[in-house]
Amino acid sequence: MNYEDYFRRQLDGLRREGRYRVFADLERKAGAFPRAAHHTPSGEREVTVWCSNDYLGMGQHPKVLAAMHEALDRCGAGAGGTRNIAGTNHYHVLLEAELADLHGKQAALLFNSGYVSNWTTLSTLASRMPGCVILSDELNHASMIEGMKHSRCATRVFRHNDVADLRSKLSDLDRDAPKLIAFEAVYSMDGDIAPIADICDVADEHGALTYLDEVHATGLYGPRGGGISDREGLSDRLTVIEGTLAKAFGVIGGYITGSHTVCDFVRSFASGFIFSSALPPAVAAGALTSIRHLKASSHERERHQDRVATLRRKLDQAGVQHLDNPSHIVPVMVRDPVLCKEISDTLLDRYGIYVQPINYPTVARGTERLRITPSPLHSDADIDALVTALSEIWAEVGLARAA
Amino acid sequence: MNYEDYFRRQLDGLRREGRYRVFADLERKAGAFPRAAHHTPSGEREVTVWCSNDYLGMGQHPKVLAAMHEALDRCGAGAGGTRNIAGTNHYHVLLEAELADLHGKQAALLFNSGYVSNWTTLSTLASRMPGCVILSDELNHASMIEGMKHSRCATRVFRHNDVADLRSKLSDLDRDAPKLIAFEAVYSMDGDIAPIADICDVADEHGALTYLDEVHATGLYGPRGGGISDREGLSDRLTVIEGTLAKAFGVIGGYITGSHTVCDFVRSFASGFIFSSALPPAVAAGALTSIRHLKASSHERERHQDRVATLRRKLDQAGVQHLDNPSHIVPVMVRDPVLCKEISDTLLDRYGIYVQPINYPTVARGTERLRITPSPLHSDADIDALVTALSEIWAEVGLARAA
Ligand SMILES: Cc1ncc(COP(=O)(O)O)c(C=O)c1O
Ligand SMILES: Cc1ncc(COP(=O)(O)O)c(C=O)c1O
Repeated sequence: MNYEDYFRRQLDGLRREGRYRVFADLERKAGAFPRAAHHTPSGEREVTVWCSNDYLGMGQHPKVLAAMHEALDRCGAGAGGTRNIAGTNHYHVLLEAELADLHGKQAALLFNSGYVSNWTTLSTLASRMPGCVILSDELNHASMIEGMKHSRCATRVFRHNDVADLRSKLSDLDRDAPKLIAFEAVYSMDGDIAPIADICDVADEHGALTYLDEVHATGLYGPRGGGISDREGLSDRLTVIEGTLAKAFGVIGGYITGSHTVCDFVRSFASGFIFSSALPPAVAAGALTSIRHLKASSHERERHQDRVATLRRKLDQAGVQHLDNPSHIVPVMVRDPVLCKEISDTLLDRYGIYVQPINYPTVARGTERLRITPSPLHSDADIDALVTALSEIWAEVGLARAA
Repeated sequence: MNYEDYFRRQLDGLRREGRYRVFADLERKAGAFPRAAHHTPSGEREVTVWCSNDYLGMGQHPKVLAAMHEALDRCGAGAGGTRNIAGTNHYHVLLEAELADLHGKQAALLFNSGYVSNWTTLSTLASRMPGCVILSDELNHASMIEGMKHSRCATRVFRHNDVADLRSKLSDLDRDAPKLIAFEAVYSMDGDIAPIADICDVADEHGALTYLDEVHATGLYGPRGGGISDREGLSDRLTVIEGTLAKAFGVIGGYITGSHTVCDFVRSFASGFIFSSALPPAVAAGALTSIRHLKASSHERERHQDRVATLRRKLDQAGVQHLDNPSHIVPVMVRDPVLCKEISDTLLDRYGIYVQPINYPTVARGTERLRITPSPLHSDADIDALVTALSEIWAEVGLARAA
């Protein structure tokens, strides 16, 4: 077997389909977000980033940076071990307490990423309950899907946000079997929101655990930034609330929150938690400060929603269609992978605007899009520049306009 | 089903077996490693850490900290996205080039941890080659095992470091099937080293790919710190060399190195890489500086080996038995989980010495141990204090002495 040749042919396949990925080599400029330097073979150039998931720009917040500087000087660069073997740092302990409080839960557990928290928690919970059946929303994130697969439990996929379908699938199951419903608060690609209360009702009817991914909502919704479940007063109805420290909180890492027992169970049995070095103290310190700030301040959330509304209004005025949804994510549909990449290239090359094309497998084929994420730091002028650019490109490539 | 009750009973089982884990709440003191503050309910107390995997103390190196401070101020706290969507930072690009060079490979790919690099690379390579068979050393790390399981490929486990067994298992396989041999350079719990050249010979005979985990060796061995494969001039014989940035390099993160094609293949197809936020620029900058320093300086490696030899000699003089091996890991065997925990508690409470007990599932039952990791920063006085403490405890609990 010629392995190199085999791998090369697989990569050629991606190129033919127009979905071979080229990463933009960026250097974000702290203090000047959403501006970044774009490194190219022909030199550096300033661009405006319109697709970051540092939704609130907390990654440049002076308090966050100050906390990280301080922890670096105090404790050094890394944690020095796994959580069990020399790697638990006091900042981890403080951060877990803060996260538990954020979601109104007894306890929290940190992971190196949101991906790992989903993968390892779902696979551990499901695989360690004999006979467990997982009910999974059909649009769940890859990290949840891989975790469910890894558990090797029976999985029933219910139609997206469809409570009736979930109920009917639950009704088919053995009453006494352990059951786990896994879903998201804000779906990151379409920006729609789950009917959390209704799903919790159905879970109660059928004695199922509930697992909610709030990755695209924590920090952004709720009076203290506890996500959609916080906004709707539902935190105590969920068994596990999962989130990331890499999006609205602006740093890196993932976590779950729940009862002492659930968190202790995952802490004690999850391979992906036990056998991996802990997050650096400075990362934990930065996330801690970011969460505390967003608990007390709604300013960033309000300005964020204002920017989102402003962008939508101006897109509407220009007739550039975007998917309607009740969140902060503005998907501008192109529905073709090659054209989507072309438009993204034109935005970057001609206008200095960076919006990565979103193609399969991140979204279904035929739903390729530009996924635009306004932040509190995007000015009116930034919005106007983006809308003008899109409008000009739309005219050139002949994409349909709204009435 | 009463879930809380079920989880609680599982945790009680761990307690009964003496392997319920309690994390030590530490605050490492940058500039004073191996000293840390131990936070307890009754207050803070200074301890000497003897079980960190920040093997060389690079986590407090002034150059590493300076690089991280600078990157924090330049680019902010987080990367702001996945590598594909706004999250590639120029520091990632530089770090990948540095890692490729460290291992004499064409390319490298970063992950959020060594765990994720093993899990996601092995599962992607194996599952994407139809009919692939994995040959796995029986003592491979959990992250590799989970990756292999996740691939759902046929796996043949060969006896630990046993080239004859590996050859015989390979001979049984279809000549044309894709094959992948997965093993480690330094096994972290016993500290023994794989016969890398022999394994590569067998791989060549049978047309198998080779995947080497150098997590406990990079930075520590070889003229430039490229690990055991570097020391033995074997880097070019391995398909993939995997490592971590969280141990000898002192920060956090994982990586693979290999040909352009292999790295591009994993980059393009691996769920655990694609769908997770990238490491913070400051983390990449710190790791970059740490690697560059250890490429040019052998001082840390020499002092490290000197400390290991000194500790061994003094343990021998005191008659405290330890597992003989050709690496930097000093396992002091206790062979009982409850006693192991007791000794660790006494070391901490009475002597201010922190060595976490290593129990199942990290090691096999009946091989419970204290895993001691000397660093260049442990002084003669530190070594004497440790050996005296162990000697006193050994007398008290009646553990056998060497002749
Ligand atoms: C819904 C969802 N869950 C989890 C993750 C993973 O979180 P992280 O980036 O912290 O790994 C992502 C994206 O990155 C996501 O979109
Ligand atoms: C052999 C081995 N591989 C991989 C890992 C995982 O690396 P990381 O700690 O960076 O997740 C570890 C331990 O942590 C290990 O011992």
